[in-house]
Amino acid sequence: MRAIQIVTTRLSSCLRPIRLEFVSSSSPQLFSNTRRLLCTAAATKSNGGRSGSIVAPLVANEEGEEVQKIDVNPPKGTRDFAPEDMRLRNWLFNHFKEVSRLFGYEEVDYPVLETEALFIRKAGEEIRDQLYCFEDRGKRRVALRPELTPSLARLVIQKGKSVSLPLKWFAIGQCWRYERMTRGRRREHYQWNMDIIGVPQVTAEAELISSIVTFFKRIGITASDVGFKVSSRKVLQEMLRKYGVPETLFGRVCIIIDKIEKIPIDEIKKELGSTGISEDAIEQLLQVLSVKSLDDLEDVLGGAGEAIADLKQLFSLAEKFGYSEWIQFDASVVRGLAYYTGIVFEGFDRKGNLRAICGGGRYDRLLPTYGGDDIPACGFGFGDAVIVELLKEKNLLPELGQEVENIVCALEKDLQGAAATVATTLRSKGQTVDLVLESKPLKWVFKRAARINARRLILVGKTEWEDGSVSVKVLSSGEQFQVKLNDLE
Amino acid sequence: MRAIQIVTTRLSSCLRPIRLEFVSSSSPQLFSNTRRLLCTAAATKSNGGRSGSIVAPLVANEEGEEVQKIDVNPPKGTRDFAPEDMRLRNWLFNHFKEVSRLFGYEEVDYPVLETEALFIRKAGEEIRDQLYCFEDRGKRRVALRPELTPSLARLVIQKGKSVSLPLKWFAIGQCWRYERMTRGRRREHYQWNMDIIGVPQVTAEAELISSIVTFFKRIGITASDVGFKVSSRKVLQEMLRKYGVPETLFGRVCIIIDKIEKIPIDEIKKELGSTGISEDAIEQLLQVLSVKSLDDLEDVLGGAGEAIADLKQLFSLAEKFGYSEWIQFDASVVRGLAYYTGIVFEGFDRKGNLRAICGGGRYDRLLPTYGGDDIPACGFGFGDAVIVELLKEKNLLPELGQEVENIVCALEKDLQGAAATVATTLRSKGQTVDLVLESKPLKWVFKRAARINARRLILVGKTEWEDGSVSVKVLSSGEQFQVKLNDLE
Repeated sequence: MRAIQIVTTRLSSCLRPIRLEFVSSSSPQLFSNTRRLLCTAAATKSNGGRSGSIVAPLVANEEGEEVQKIDVNPPKGTRDFAPEDMRLRNWLFNHFKEVSRLFGYEEVDYPVLETEALFIRKAGEEIRDQLYCFEDRGKRRVALRPELTPSLARLVIQKGKSVSLPLKWFAIGQCWRYERMTRGRRREHYQWNMDIIGVPQVTAEAELISSIVTFFKRIGITASDVGFKVSSRKVLQEMLRKYGVPETLFGRVCIIIDKIEKIPIDEIKKELGSTGISEDAIEQLLQVLSVKSLDDLEDVLGGAGEAIADLKQLFSLAEKFGYSEWIQFDASVVRGLAYYTGIVFEGFDRKGNLRAICGGGRYDRLLPTYGGDDIPACGFGFGDAVIVELLKEKNLLPELGQEVENIVCALEKDLQGAAATVATTLRSKGQTVDLVLESKPLKWVFKRAARINARRLILVGKTEWEDGSVSVKVLSSGEQFQVKLNDLE
Repeated sequence: MRAIQIVTTRLSSCLRPIRLEFVSSSSPQLFSNTRRLLCTAAATKSNGGRSGSIVAPLVANEEGEEVQKIDVNPPKGTRDFAPEDMRLRNWLFNHFKEVSRLFGYEEVDYPVLETEALFIRKAGEEIRDQLYCFEDRGKRRVALRPELTPSLARLVIQKGKSVSLPLKWFAIGQCWRYERMTRGRRREHYQWNMDIIGVPQVTAEAELISSIVTFFKRIGITASDVGFKVSSRKVLQEMLRKYGVPETLFGRVCIIIDKIEKIPIDEIKKELGSTGISEDAIEQLLQVLSVKSLDDLEDVLGGAGEAIADLKQLFSLAEKFGYSEWIQFDASVVRGLAYYTGIVFEGFDRKGNLRAICGGGRYDRLLPTYGGDDIPACGFGFGDAVIVELLKEKNLLPELGQEVENIVCALEKDLQGAAATVATTLRSKGQTVDLVLESKPLKWVFKRAARINARRLILVGKTEWEDGSVSVKVLSSGEQFQVKLNDLE
């Protein structure tokens, strides 16, 4: 036994007692390393993402070896996916994929590491300040993507005339934001995106919302749990035009207005004022944003504009798609990304406990902004974090255990080869098999069988095997029988 | 029409003609941005990963607007996955997952961004020099993971006593290496890993190789295409012990020897000499590495050591698992990672055209090196690049087209809502539907139906719809009939 020095690296004050452990060196000391990496004991749960080590300092243990403190937690704000976490992630992603498939969308992906310039826009978005960017060894400015849409635009432009419009694409990708860590906010999340490239009509937005509704229904979420607030940026645009505000200010004004529920209204007014908009216009603008019905909006804007026409068409299509009860008009919705130009929407929980569940809209000017053709586009992003919170709250999280059909075990050490043959035979027939790789007591095997939810236990014993047979125990019923290996299905 | 200035950013000399384009500003000039991002025309194919822009400089176009050059290619050494690429990736990954499932392994994942310290080992591995590392905004040294095994070790230590051994885990994750770009080598690839934690016996390695063989068979690769070279690092270890070489040099010696086919033999000898090993020992070592049969190895090492015993057991188990013809002993295989301690293996193409297809082995000392308990472990990594090269060479790449069951189209603009109802009905029955979102001529619809391999075309016309019916055309046979929407399956 050799004592190992356990050093804590937590900088936060929430230190908990750390369990000291000893590493037993039962195996020969052949590989005693000159430098030993040590870790802090995993006293806290991993998903909190608490991790204090900034630089791993070198110290020496009692034997004079170099000891490097490393942390067993993933870097701050990131997650491990242990098997139980991964089962939930796969369950969620499979629903994303299955819905996208039902709607005839094709899956795509882009590099998680992109050129920084792709994400730099001047409208003052939150997303820019949170860019996970750095200079690589080749002195290139790169960034871990904070969202997928710019990469999509880049790929569409690159494909050019080689693809036929409309494109209907979906992606599930990890996105990164270097945020101050608060409860439940991490620095990475996965985002499901669906996008339609090349359709100028509101039918596109209507179908996108239909796909999200389909997703909600599949996982047990109803219209009384969740709704969509819908508006159009053309409302703001028509207001700005009315007051002679330069069109170049449009993106910036949208970003300011998106913060309306996060910062005090006086602050909003001040920020809007600093763009040069008159006080009168600001008051009118804020007035319009509080409108919650299309009729009232029509009273303000008049019936002629595109904003009203688009929204009316969307609500009419919602009825045909069958999700009227899910959506409502709300002029205050503008979304926080600079590139939206038309319909915008966000999914919210009706109890009001959570951040937006998903959001999207039309971004007809993004492709030309990058130098591409003037192709209309719209899409949405749907994160993997808030929805899980909602499912927890509604008690709708699925119970997902490991599922292996067979556990195969040799009853004697020299039958391990025979057990391997049995496992191979079953696997070749498409049966899943956990093969016990060591000599273990039967009690241990039954315990493992229960843990992995095995349906059958296949025991390979001497007398049966001489006859080419194995013992099968059906674990749910206790039924037991012998069968020739070749007859085992 | 407004002229847009196209600027090339390629630094390489392989400039090709660049297509000048004009952006038609047919939509109102409401969103003319103060800063316009421009991109180089996508004159070369994306997957070459050629990208020359280092910093996106700002220039002004004729109208005095700021113009930012951006590149439509993904960053150097990275890939986009357009739908056709993604279909191949999914096909490959699904085989990885299905095989892992057959063997009863649980899926896991870790952050693509890890603490740099996790990957720093002192043995002089190639992988360390190629670390994609940087300092984040919080001054932490982080790295895009170059491999998955250190994260696995971290998570196992973190889980501690809460998990029951053995663990059988698999993962498919993106890994990054900042390498000099040569033909066919990129800076990222996906890697399929399977690992067994907690089994000291060679049964574990034998099962891992069995799973790779199962994968090869599924995708049409045979034992005459591919083989496994197998050895044990205990061979080297026993040789070093014989010549009194300090055990602390073990990892370093393995890394040097792994380069034996890449650099001249004199260079290898020089490097080995610089560790302090005697010339005589070096000669003997190199002699042993050329041994290609277990019997010859036994002549050199004697029959008593663990190396021989392990290898004999592995070859015996290979027979029971049913893959004898796939494996052969080859003492020169040591693998390039410092942490292997026992059996090592690599998959190779028998024509010898390609780099190693996969590789793995036993790493019993990795967990204690990180401060964890002394738990035995082994695993393999299988990349997504070389296998695709091999499949191409063997003409085994699958033909994967888009597959949508129905294409639904309104015959008049004011029936688009009705078409939406038809699409929703079919989707609720589990049918995949591409809904035509615009008014398009029938010729266009047939062309699209062919491109997406639709099985049926559902037309929504005025007279039929008044009756609650639609026209169905089975595209393979040309058969056409009318059916009530509710009866449509």
